[in-house]
Amino acid sequence: MRMTDLILKKRNGAHLTEEEISFLIKGYVAEEIPPYQISAWLMAVFFKGMSFEETGYLTRAMIASGKVFDLSSLGGPLVDKHSTGGVGDKVSLILAPLAAACGVQVPMMSGRALGHTGGTLDKLDSIPGYQSVISEELFRKGLKEIGFAMTGQSKDVVPADRLMYALRDVTGTVESVPLITASIMSKKFAEGAQSLIFDVKCGAGAFMKTPEAAEELAVSLVETGRSLDRKIVAVITNMDEPLGRKVGNFLEVEESLACLRGEGPEDLMEVTLRLTAWMVVAGGIVPTVEEALDLCKARLADGSAMEKFLENVELQGGDRKALLERENKARPLFYKDITAREEGYVQSIDSYALGLAGIPLGVGRNKTEDSVEPLVGYELMKKKGDSLLKGETLVRIWAESESALKSIEGQVRGAYSIAAEKPTTTPMILKEIKAL
Amino acid sequence: MRMTDLILKKRNGAHLTEEEISFLIKGYVAEEIPPYQISAWLMAVFFKGMSFEETGYLTRAMIASGKVFDLSSLGGPLVDKHSTGGVGDKVSLILAPLAAACGVQVPMMSGRALGHTGGTLDKLDSIPGYQSVISEELFRKGLKEIGFAMTGQSKDVVPADRLMYALRDVTGTVESVPLITASIMSKKFAEGAQSLIFDVKCGAGAFMKTPEAAEELAVSLVETGRSLDRKIVAVITNMDEPLGRKVGNFLEVEESLACLRGEGPEDLMEVTLRLTAWMVVAGGIVPTVEEALDLCKARLADGSAMEKFLENVELQGGDRKALLERENKARPLFYKDITAREEGYVQSIDSYALGLAGIPLGVGRNKTEDSVEPLVGYELMKKKGDSLLKGETLVRIWAESESALKSIEGQVRGAYSIAAEKPTTTPMILKEIKAL
Repeated sequence: MRMTDLILKKRNGAHLTEEEISFLIKGYVAEEIPPYQISAWLMAVFFKGMSFEETGYLTRAMIASGKVFDLSSLGGPLVDKHSTGGVGDKVSLILAPLAAACGVQVPMMSGRALGHTGGTLDKLDSIPGYQSVISEELFRKGLKEIGFAMTGQSKDVVPADRLMYALRDVTGTVESVPLITASIMSKKFAEGAQSLIFDVKCGAGAFMKTPEAAEELAVSLVETGRSLDRKIVAVITNMDEPLGRKVGNFLEVEESLACLRGEGPEDLMEVTLRLTAWMVVAGGIVPTVEEALDLCKARLADGSAMEKFLENVELQGGDRKALLERENKARPLFYKDITAREEGYVQSIDSYALGLAGIPLGVGRNKTEDSVEPLVGYELMKKKGDSLLKGETLVRIWAESESALKSIEGQVRGAYSIAAEKPTTTPMILKEIKAL
Repeated sequence: MRMTDLILKKRNGAHLTEEEISFLIKGYVAEEIPPYQISAWLMAVFFKGMSFEETGYLTRAMIASGKVFDLSSLGGPLVDKHSTGGVGDKVSLILAPLAAACGVQVPMMSGRALGHTGGTLDKLDSIPGYQSVISEELFRKGLKEIGFAMTGQSKDVVPADRLMYALRDVTGTVESVPLITASIMSKKFAEGAQSLIFDVKCGAGAFMKTPEAAEELAVSLVETGRSLDRKIVAVITNMDEPLGRKVGNFLEVEESLACLRGEGPEDLMEVTLRLTAWMVVAGGIVPTVEEALDLCKARLADGSAMEKFLENVELQGGDRKALLERENKARPLFYKDITAREEGYVQSIDSYALGLAGIPLGVGRNKTEDSVEPLVGYELMKKKGDSLLKGETLVRIWAESESALKSIEGQVRGAYSIAAEKPTTTPMILKEIKAL
């Protein structure tokens, strides 16, 4: 087998076999195939695409390039969720304990904030004492005893993806749906999930800007999963504005606690319940999403989901009491209310702009080596469709310095678009695509 | 300037500026831009193409990567010819002395046989004593005193092309018209030509199989040349069968001598005269191709073209007397006549098959380090449209061993397709595209 022939085959629009894709990934990781051949193949994939079967072969070959967590001895069902990323997206913090309370095991390995989006690990680290990166032993213990645990992604998992992503980043081949699909799926399956639920965010603040782009990725994820005999549901959700009313590390932990009490904001509750319900269905706990939704609501109402969350906090070194004492009290030194200059209605909130403004504030980071601030962020007093009187607060910015506040004030104000007419509402759940 | 941005720009179908292309080529040659970025860009060029202006920028940037022969002090006009390559294509051997006899200077730097096509240098080396690779000093002397000289391509010329071709070869990016255009043109201009005539071969035995593919390349060569303010003519010529009646190194020298006496086969004479006439026009010797054709015919008739050829033989160490004594006499030890098994007409001769069969014979070579045989080859007794009686000889194969003869007999017979009907004739000159 010659790599040149595989490049030509893809360039000419043909499909590669599983053996060919396996040869390519093995050869790349073993440094037997040079990066200049891989990058030419990646560009050919960008233009010619891959079938769902090919994407499945690629996913499988990438999984085989590194460590695979076999969690099957824990009993399962092992179901995880992946989100394409959004501002204010604290769904994982609520969904994992809720799914666990319903009988699902959730082996959640997450990332840190980078660019305009926050990171689950940074949010968890804002809990007093919490260790967001734990040993495999403790991770397994959490899964077995509580039903979920949270940790960072292991460096040993899917090394092919790390190599290939670095190459894609400098060769103009990031925006390829099959490559994105294999990258996401290979990591989640290598980390031990049996079934996957995807939250494909759609809107100005999301990676997928249009319903068409979001659906293309959702279909690719589901159909590739089907070709691998996995249960997959992709839920396309609305990202016209940040999710919920709090953005920031500890601020999002607080909002997650509210949701676990059943008192969270409507948009966040709806998205979280829907995604968790599909996990419960994919895990085979109940047969229909309606039953799963009822079960989730019951687990919120009886306090068992909240209890799972707090058990995890204790397992991972956090202080349950200190957490609850700080809730809605721990705030940084400075704040600034951005107020309405005229009356009207909020039309949309540019979450991308808000996310970028959050970097100098300390919500997120530009480079992986930067640190974040636990307490800073935004409280959104007004969201899309809310009416405004002149002088009313749109958003409160929390900061650790006055200069940080000053530097982003204009950006935050600019993220709100306001007009006299009440905007039409968009549903939070735009579409669902399933392979069950 | 970041290479990643230039890849994205091309991937998205935009045109690069001259500064961007210059940055890219300089960076590649200086090893500041890694091959994996160049190969991704090459694949993007394969899919998105380049404008003629861009191809001109690429040509210019590639020329600037190495040594440039400045032959302008020789007086000129300096005009060269390039052929995309065919079997039996000995046009250069006739055209160079003929153009010189008409007052053009022809700085001809050629290659060796590789694969199914022969090489001008190998043909010249079959002349007793002839040195096909000479010093720059002797090359300039030949150009000044005779009007032409023949030598190999200098390693110092267009190093960017050598690097890039090696990369294209292993990344599935050879068949890209703008990349082929810049590769051909950059070398010819760096070697000192001011104007260029292209022989774009079209047919089963040629690099360009269809009239559409041949025209696409011809237009690219001419329009890129126009963007560089150069005089360019591309002549698309028919390659339904080998050119002339002799194929092989010394056999082709013999047929060239016959042409220089005005006695060559019709197809070869027609193509050679047309190409040479355009050189005479591009060189500004006479204004029209009709006048140029008349001048060429006069220079054949008065023996001055033949005299130029023999002067060059002497300049480059060859033995004029020994050459003429051997003409039509020097033959290898073995031959085999392939005869007609039934009566009919020759429909076509597969020159690709004939060329491949010539490799074990010693006409050509598989690898650059292989050697060739001077005297072996084919004499085509019958060509397309000729009528056949049963038992008549189609082609005589000349070989240095019986085993070589045996091994290719079937292949050579198979190259002839014969049927009862006389085939329709195709003109030799299919189309001409000009920037004058």
